[in-house]
Amino acid sequence: MHTTFQMRTNGAGLYEITDDVRGWISGRADGLLTLMIQHTSASLLIQENADPEVQTDLQAFFSRLVPPSSDPSMAYLRHTYEGPDDMPAHIKAAMMPVSLQIPVMQGKLRLGMWQGIYIFEHRNHPHDRNVAGYFSETSRIK
Amino acid sequence: MHTTFQMRTNGAGLYEITDDVRGWISGRADGLLTLMIQHTSASLLIQENADPEVQTDLQAFFSRLVPPSSDPSMAYLRHTYEGPDDMPAHIKAAMMPVSLQIPVMQGKLRLGMWQGIYIFEHRNHPHDRNVAGYFSETSRIK
Amino acid sequence: MHTTFQMRTNGAGLYEITDDVRGWISGRADGLLTLMIQHTSASLLIQENADPEVQTDLQAFFSRLVPPSSDPSMAYLRHTYEGPDDMPAHIKAAMMPVSLQIPVMQGKLRLGMWQGIYIFEHRNHPHDRNVAGYFSETSRIK
Repeated sequence: MHTTFQMRTNGAGLYEITDDVRGWISGRADGLLTLMIQHTSASLLIQENADPEVQTDLQAFFSRLVPPSSDPSMAYLRHTYEGPDDMPAHIKAAMMPVSLQIPVMQGKLRLGMWQGIYIFEHRNHPHDRNVAGYFSETSRIK
Repeated sequence: MHTTFQMRTNGAGLYEITDDVRGWISGRADGLLTLMIQHTSASLLIQENADPEVQTDLQAFFSRLVPPSSDPSMAYLRHTYEGPDDMPAHIKAAMMPVSLQIPVMQGKLRLGMWQGIYIFEHRNHPHDRNVAGYFSETSRIK
Repeated sequence: MHTTFQMRTNGAGLYEITDDVRGWISGRADGLLTLMIQHTSASLLIQENADPEVQTDLQAFFSRLVPPSSDPSMAYLRHTYEGPDDMPAHIKAAMMPVSLQIPVMQGKLRLGMWQGIYIFEHRNHPHDRNVAGYFSETSRIK
């Protein structure tokens, strides 16, 4: 069973989608949920959903690890015509998940107590982001 | 079919769980194994299981790439009240897999010759870690 | 349903396998595709397939982030006997995906418009690389 989760982001940072995903899974049986983000300049993360400073710290770290291509330390980059935040976004998208799999038990995501599901937007301007969702139910006939 | 693999870690480093996983899969038919770690300060890795120095080198690299929040270079971090190893653990957990998928053929994991499955503990103190396991068998009725 | 995609790489860099994967999936029904690379010194990536400079920039970034073990900054590494590009390859393999999951709808990969599937070779010399492929079709009997 397929779906698409849609989100309009508004600048770099983490956007939680746990409730959307939970709502779609609710009432189903056992199975496996797959999420795959259909873009190469944003990521999917499972991260702590308790203290929002975790999210801003994550963004702060990765923006330092991969500075804009306008930064002198990144002068070797060639793919710059889509803006100084574009190639760093592709790099971050290579370092963080493009797809996630979460086992589902009786309609509930088997997430840990502090785990939430996030889109990590790496671009500075607003973007429409699509996450392909797929649920494969355990076959009841064996 | 669900399970939970449990492991008590004893400080930062890699802990192999390949045999536990193999034992659980043994005797089953074709299908797909999913593992998902239910924490945001530890990761799952598939890595070389031949030379143990690979494991210590991996830990050495990531501890330099993401130093403790007490390090002057990390003074911008805000989420520090759980200890200097906590926010770096979340960062490493964003950079390395939270879920793994391994095809299973006639009860055997389709791993390469040198691949083992590891929990990568990012915290310094002992922790109880849970890995959700799910096996979806190929349906025999089409 | 299992397969193995085989590729001989010729030095570090990205090698696209999208067409091979698409060909194998073509004609099938709905389901989930899993790819898992059976090596610990190469990765799988879903990345932009429009501008080839994205691929060379990705390689340029990661070769700077993780220099050869012969570089003075990497003198702490111990696993060096397989060459100066070996341990950095394991590190990169820990930072980028070993497995990918892509939902399939009526025989088509649900990739975004600019997404291609790549093997990211981290070693300098030619290597034979195997990617385990598995397709689990949605059960038609519920």
